[in-house]
Amino acid sequence: MSQIEKISGVKVFGGWQNQYQHESSSLNCSMKFSVYLPPAYEQQQPVGVLYWLSGLTCTDENFVTKAGAQRIASELGIILVIPDTSPRGDEVPNDDAYDLGQGAGFYLNATQPPWDKHYHMYDYIVNELPSLIKTNFNVRDKAAIAGHSMGGHGALVIGLANQMHYTSVSAFAPIVNPCECDWGKKAFSHYLGDDQSAWQQYDACHLMQQQQGILTIPMLVDQGLADNFYESQKLTKPLEEMCKQVGYPAQFAYHEGYDHSYFFISSFIEQHLRFHHRYLTA
Amino acid sequence: MSQIEKISGVKVFGGWQNQYQHESSSLNCSMKFSVYLPPAYEQQQPVGVLYWLSGLTCTDENFVTKAGAQRIASELGIILVIPDTSPRGDEVPNDDAYDLGQGAGFYLNATQPPWDKHYHMYDYIVNELPSLIKTNFNVRDKAAIAGHSMGGHGALVIGLANQMHYTSVSAFAPIVNPCECDWGKKAFSHYLGDDQSAWQQYDACHLMQQQQGILTIPMLVDQGLADNFYESQKLTKPLEEMCKQVGYPAQFAYHEGYDHSYFFISSFIEQHLRFHHRYLTA
Repeated sequence: MSQIEKISGVKVFGGWQNQYQHESSSLNCSMKFSVYLPPAYEQQQPVGVLYWLSGLTCTDENFVTKAGAQRIASELGIILVIPDTSPRGDEVPNDDAYDLGQGAGFYLNATQPPWDKHYHMYDYIVNELPSLIKTNFNVRDKAAIAGHSMGGHGALVIGLANQMHYTSVSAFAPIVNPCECDWGKKAFSHYLGDDQSAWQQYDACHLMQQQQGILTIPMLVDQGLADNFYESQKLTKPLEEMCKQVGYPAQFAYHEGYDHSYFFISSFIEQHLRFHHRYLTA
Repeated sequence: MSQIEKISGVKVFGGWQNQYQHESSSLNCSMKFSVYLPPAYEQQQPVGVLYWLSGLTCTDENFVTKAGAQRIASELGIILVIPDTSPRGDEVPNDDAYDLGQGAGFYLNATQPPWDKHYHMYDYIVNELPSLIKTNFNVRDKAAIAGHSMGGHGALVIGLANQMHYTSVSAFAPIVNPCECDWGKKAFSHYLGDDQSAWQQYDACHLMQQQQGILTIPMLVDQGLADNFYESQKLTKPLEEMCKQVGYPAQFAYHEGYDHSYFFISSFIEQHLRFHHRYLTA
């Protein structure tokens, strides 16, 4: 069992924003992640957890400093767990582009060299990190999962493919059809190879279509209409259309004037945490 | 009259977080500042303004991205104006240290070379910037002023010395007695010279003592008790003691476990905005 080491902690909204590091067996490198412990957190009573998956170029720190989520997590008594977005370190393959390599793990298990030794973010988020959290914190069994952009893709794919482990899933401006947009095609061809049948397990639209009839997980998606990536990177809309097609009752909301930034996330994160809280405590 | 140019704008909490640049006559350089316009802002009805002065090393962007103030300003209908912390540019004298030169203007008018050509942040905040804001936005005449650390020093000194222009003043972890701490002594000796009688006009404790009997401006100060600079840099406490000595009814609150960071500010900024809102709308 891997151990975690606390490397910093700061008080915010009555709780503690901590950062930890550990040796990851799925990623074969040292990783950092952040955890917000609300004031209600105590060893006696298990607390609900929300996993937040960040977008391209982010570490675990962007959401922590910019989203303003601690205020609501403090009030609702939710633990926030924020992982990094890829394996890290000098020994981990990288690329000069912002949308491949470190900071761009795409929440999948890479099968192609040189990525296949370290880039197993899917296993890390689905198995290793929750196991670490359950060992080190007194938490409820099922968790909520949410994310932004590439992390919205991660949250939707992981939530849809593993709904037995999650209470609810939500996303801000998620890449919902990576098989059909530039970010996704570039990342998938490098990490997974040219056989596109291997890509579909990581495409929320495909999962929604494949799993119709067996899906029951509550889902909420918000999208800014001034988001520069909205059409070109297949954000949100194709999934809404697929949900309509298969009759899945997910909630989609579109917002005039909002862009792709953390200012958009901070404006609506309260609604997402309240959405998840209903299911975490049900 | 100087003109301002809008260089960016992003929607947040229903309002607009904009950044502007202009040629500053007090500072003899090009400057940037940020403005949050709440949804209630319109040309018909003047809106109350809060000036936020940031601390050492900050630009106008730290408060904008980290404090979470837009949520409350949106609700209350307050404009936030966030200036930079010093003159800027290649032609502006600088120093390798973080606590002198660019990013460390200390909200004073420098009299010593090489600083005296550009370092007039006092004039900039008291006169030039408010004049610019009143010309370009439909705002109420008197404004609120607040700040953090070096910016808390700036807010207190400017509010106390110009109470006819301000409705109310507040600060997080302010340097209240710069004449007696390392940060203040270093900055004042470089910017103002060795004659310490020239320093006192920029020391909140001295102003509180000198102006007793004529002060009426409402004042609120919050301080974290896990702040590493609390004792060494004369934060908060000496001013509370001076207020007691002269019988001034300022509000001081101390918070266990909170440090000197924006996590502390974000935890209590709502109380500060609600405090100022009472006087801005009185």
